[in-house]
Amino acid sequence: MHGQMMNLPLTITNIMKFADKVYGNSEIVSVTADNPYHRYTYADAFRRVRQLANALARLGVEPGQCVGTLAMNDYRHLELYYAISCSGMVCHTINPRLFPEQLEYIINHAEDQYLFLDVMFVPVLERLVERLPRVKGFVVMTDEAHMPASSCLPNLICYESLIAGEADTFDWPELDENEASSLCYTSGTTGNPKGVLYSHRSTVLHCYGSALADSFGLSGRDVVMPIVPMFHVNGWGLVYSGPMVGAKLVMPGAKMGDGETLCTLINEEKVTLSAGVPTVWLALLGYLERSGQQVPSLQRITTGGAACPQPIFDRFRDQFDVEVQQAWGMTEMSPLGTYNTLRPHMVSWSEQEKTPVRLKQGRPVCGVDMKIVDDNNRELPWDGKASGAVKVRGPWVIQRYFKAGEDACDAEGWFETGDVATIDADGYMQITDRTKDVIKSGGEWISSIELENVAMTHPLVAEAAVIGVYHEKWTERPLLVVVAKEGESPTAAELLAHFQGRVASWWIPEACEFVAEIPHTATGKVSKKDLRVRFSDYVWPNKTGE
Amino acid sequence: MHGQMMNLPLTITNIMKFADKVYGNSEIVSVTADNPYHRYTYADAFRRVRQLANALARLGVEPGQCVGTLAMNDYRHLELYYAISCSGMVCHTINPRLFPEQLEYIINHAEDQYLFLDVMFVPVLERLVERLPRVKGFVVMTDEAHMPASSCLPNLICYESLIAGEADTFDWPELDENEASSLCYTSGTTGNPKGVLYSHRSTVLHCYGSALADSFGLSGRDVVMPIVPMFHVNGWGLVYSGPMVGAKLVMPGAKMGDGETLCTLINEEKVTLSAGVPTVWLALLGYLERSGQQVPSLQRITTGGAACPQPIFDRFRDQFDVEVQQAWGMTEMSPLGTYNTLRPHMVSWSEQEKTPVRLKQGRPVCGVDMKIVDDNNRELPWDGKASGAVKVRGPWVIQRYFKAGEDACDAEGWFETGDVATIDADGYMQITDRTKDVIKSGGEWISSIELENVAMTHPLVAEAAVIGVYHEKWTERPLLVVVAKEGESPTAAELLAHFQGRVASWWIPEACEFVAEIPHTATGKVSKKDLRVRFSDYVWPNKTGE
Repeated sequence: MHGQMMNLPLTITNIMKFADKVYGNSEIVSVTADNPYHRYTYADAFRRVRQLANALARLGVEPGQCVGTLAMNDYRHLELYYAISCSGMVCHTINPRLFPEQLEYIINHAEDQYLFLDVMFVPVLERLVERLPRVKGFVVMTDEAHMPASSCLPNLICYESLIAGEADTFDWPELDENEASSLCYTSGTTGNPKGVLYSHRSTVLHCYGSALADSFGLSGRDVVMPIVPMFHVNGWGLVYSGPMVGAKLVMPGAKMGDGETLCTLINEEKVTLSAGVPTVWLALLGYLERSGQQVPSLQRITTGGAACPQPIFDRFRDQFDVEVQQAWGMTEMSPLGTYNTLRPHMVSWSEQEKTPVRLKQGRPVCGVDMKIVDDNNRELPWDGKASGAVKVRGPWVIQRYFKAGEDACDAEGWFETGDVATIDADGYMQITDRTKDVIKSGGEWISSIELENVAMTHPLVAEAAVIGVYHEKWTERPLLVVVAKEGESPTAAELLAHFQGRVASWWIPEACEFVAEIPHTATGKVSKKDLRVRFSDYVWPNKTGE
Repeated sequence: MHGQMMNLPLTITNIMKFADKVYGNSEIVSVTADNPYHRYTYADAFRRVRQLANALARLGVEPGQCVGTLAMNDYRHLELYYAISCSGMVCHTINPRLFPEQLEYIINHAEDQYLFLDVMFVPVLERLVERLPRVKGFVVMTDEAHMPASSCLPNLICYESLIAGEADTFDWPELDENEASSLCYTSGTTGNPKGVLYSHRSTVLHCYGSALADSFGLSGRDVVMPIVPMFHVNGWGLVYSGPMVGAKLVMPGAKMGDGETLCTLINEEKVTLSAGVPTVWLALLGYLERSGQQVPSLQRITTGGAACPQPIFDRFRDQFDVEVQQAWGMTEMSPLGTYNTLRPHMVSWSEQEKTPVRLKQGRPVCGVDMKIVDDNNRELPWDGKASGAVKVRGPWVIQRYFKAGEDACDAEGWFETGDVATIDADGYMQITDRTKDVIKSGGEWISSIELENVAMTHPLVAEAAVIGVYHEKWTERPLLVVVAKEGESPTAAELLAHFQGRVASWWIPEACEFVAEIPHTATGKVSKKDLRVRFSDYVWPNKTGE
């Protein structure tokens, strides 16, 4: 027997209409290339969104087709988010920093009809345009005064001119909540990028889950500055969840790494909450400490995308009275999986006691089901000790990559995140490694990351990496690979001794090799794939451990 | 084109499993008839829920069938909520205070298979049992020691004995999110009660919406004491939304109107948030003021069910540092429609400036679409002046009453709430009347409630009511009906003069009639229906206004 409540769809259109009606006077402040301080209201924004929807229809884009964006965080990008998705088209946000061949691949794979781009990305596409035969036109997100003087891009359109003559009313289609709303590609270290195709339903549910008090805790009294790019998983959804609660939005455009601009925006707009990767917080901290400025309105910042070093927590708390909260997720999770707030019994703890909790990635958000499993897919206990592969399920978790032939999840419907973690009795997950990097020694798992962290504390080590190498008896054993500090010549025995008492004895690397340089990926991470190739035929120097 | 995220259903089962897994050590504290201080954890609760699910299956209740409860707020009632709904059955919460003929009607209409009842309600059902031929058994929610010595109820079962021998594992069915989860009847002033049949989907979405920071703002650090009965619209959903965020629950059982018990629970359990009707707050305030106690942990209370008088806001704020927040909704809305928190520009206002805002019913929660319309169903502006019938839409709003032949909403899908309100430019709704009580004079609407409020401020008036009576020229005009204070004899002219300068001149009642007594309904409200019958042939005493 079915319930008899209204069967109304969960759509981004409804969030937009709600925000327009109830919070029409909330503000959106942007830094753009053509205006260092653009300010308007939700009502203004959604009026232009309706003009843009008319323009998209006039351009002949059809429901279900993709429209690409290469853009930073500003009001025009926000307008595109809503106009494209609420028209029943797919908003394909593209990371402009990808390699040219990756850009070419994803634009063609998505079959983007039009590309909307910031002026600064015109050269990026000029170099690619001949390999993008299906793109019908390029819309530069600026006004006529700031259009490039000349360009080899065909059908080059000015954003402001595109929408200027359009009516500001639009008859939004009634969408099925399962309709695709947006598309974001994730670039792994191997193979082509893979697209994650979000639906209106998954986006709205993610909004509700991520706005809860123990997630971002968004309210209409917040002034939210998303520093995470809108080309990274919809800017963690803040461009939807902010309007859902009527929060003021502050969008720093291309100035996302500029501590001074961030500080100015925070203080002039009274930002209460911001979100971004640790690098951004280091930039902001650096500026604040150098300039002696304070950020009194800022209450909390969400950090994600990479583990956040403890000094970032400490410096923000001690010098600026700002609480740093970790979150964890990924493109395949819309992105939010866990968020770190304190449980009630921890509130009265000393800062020293709170620190180990804060360094964890947090508890699952209601809507995300999570487990850790061993090599045989057996579920492991939540005891803070057992570490296993993290698997997730939920209505905002991926089922299948865009245009893939098979599901991305296992037979029981779980998506394997590729992360290895422990979960403690209070539900806090702590990432210990990536699945592909964890070292499987005698049926037990050793965290390569933890070993690297220990190695890096040795005064003679410039850089260190740990990989698993084949071992006759233990299947794999950890190999420490080290770049010594310039002018220093530590011995292997000396460095291995450094692990004594710092990790379990069976975790201590089996051997240490010195190299002149450790290979890195394009995004600056250690390329363990290359290291594993290099040491694939490695012969262990002695027989310890047997 | 559909998105490719997991198509997982929104079910109460998933909330339960999540709360069990992530927040298993959160507490539930209850006052029951057999235990003044019962305390256990979510993990304990859900273990017993699984035992209860096994028992329900053994009793032969089938998916889609109703199981009734006549019970106060305590842990056994919570167990029933989850065991029944997550088994695919319908949890039919029954208001034990209804008239016997209403109880008979709804129990038979719902076809309740079993009734679960508190000991205190055994006599209520004993008087009815002969007229409930389909009920297969009666389960008294207590242990063997507290079972009634004898009873005419057939197949009388003890709750604790029912579940004692059952396994604490249960294979929960995979439910469609549209499956019915619970049923609550609303008793209007005319006709039989009407059932509202909630679905798992509507319940989960209501949970998300009502937990947001500008709604109840629930976090895992909250200690929530729902004083609104669990037989009233699922206790405003707090029995679901609390576990969703891991909040500690404090359930006062039959002591909901006992200020001393409430105060003790608040202070011993460190309650941060409570929710109930204004009567409860008066009881609590009365006790606090008499006893001189404070409630330092209590941060905010939600008041709903009736307009909250200003002194309740003021006394809680000034004497106890507690913020009172209004909410508005109804059984047909799960129940939450609006919630009252301040907009950012109001935060710095003086308390005097905030008061008129706080007295409004609040802004729509994201998920609830709202409009006000005039007699011709034309939408009215949100200007804080125009008042019209409130209509709502949303995924937790009723489509059709249980077993009804037609929809409860209009052709465009809007449900008419029966309330008349203004909505201001900031989105705050203020109820001015009930649709059936508003006086339609010359095409304009006059609020009967506002006139009654003015009349009640006259020192010689004991009770006053205002109804619309037929008028040749203006269609309707307001008639003031007054019970004078004992020993006083005010004149009609004197009372009508009291309205001068307090309301618009055309709102001033056309005449005043004195009565010995004003008729009331069973729930203590003025019965305007009876008054309208009594004055249906009323002849206006003079020709003013023509």
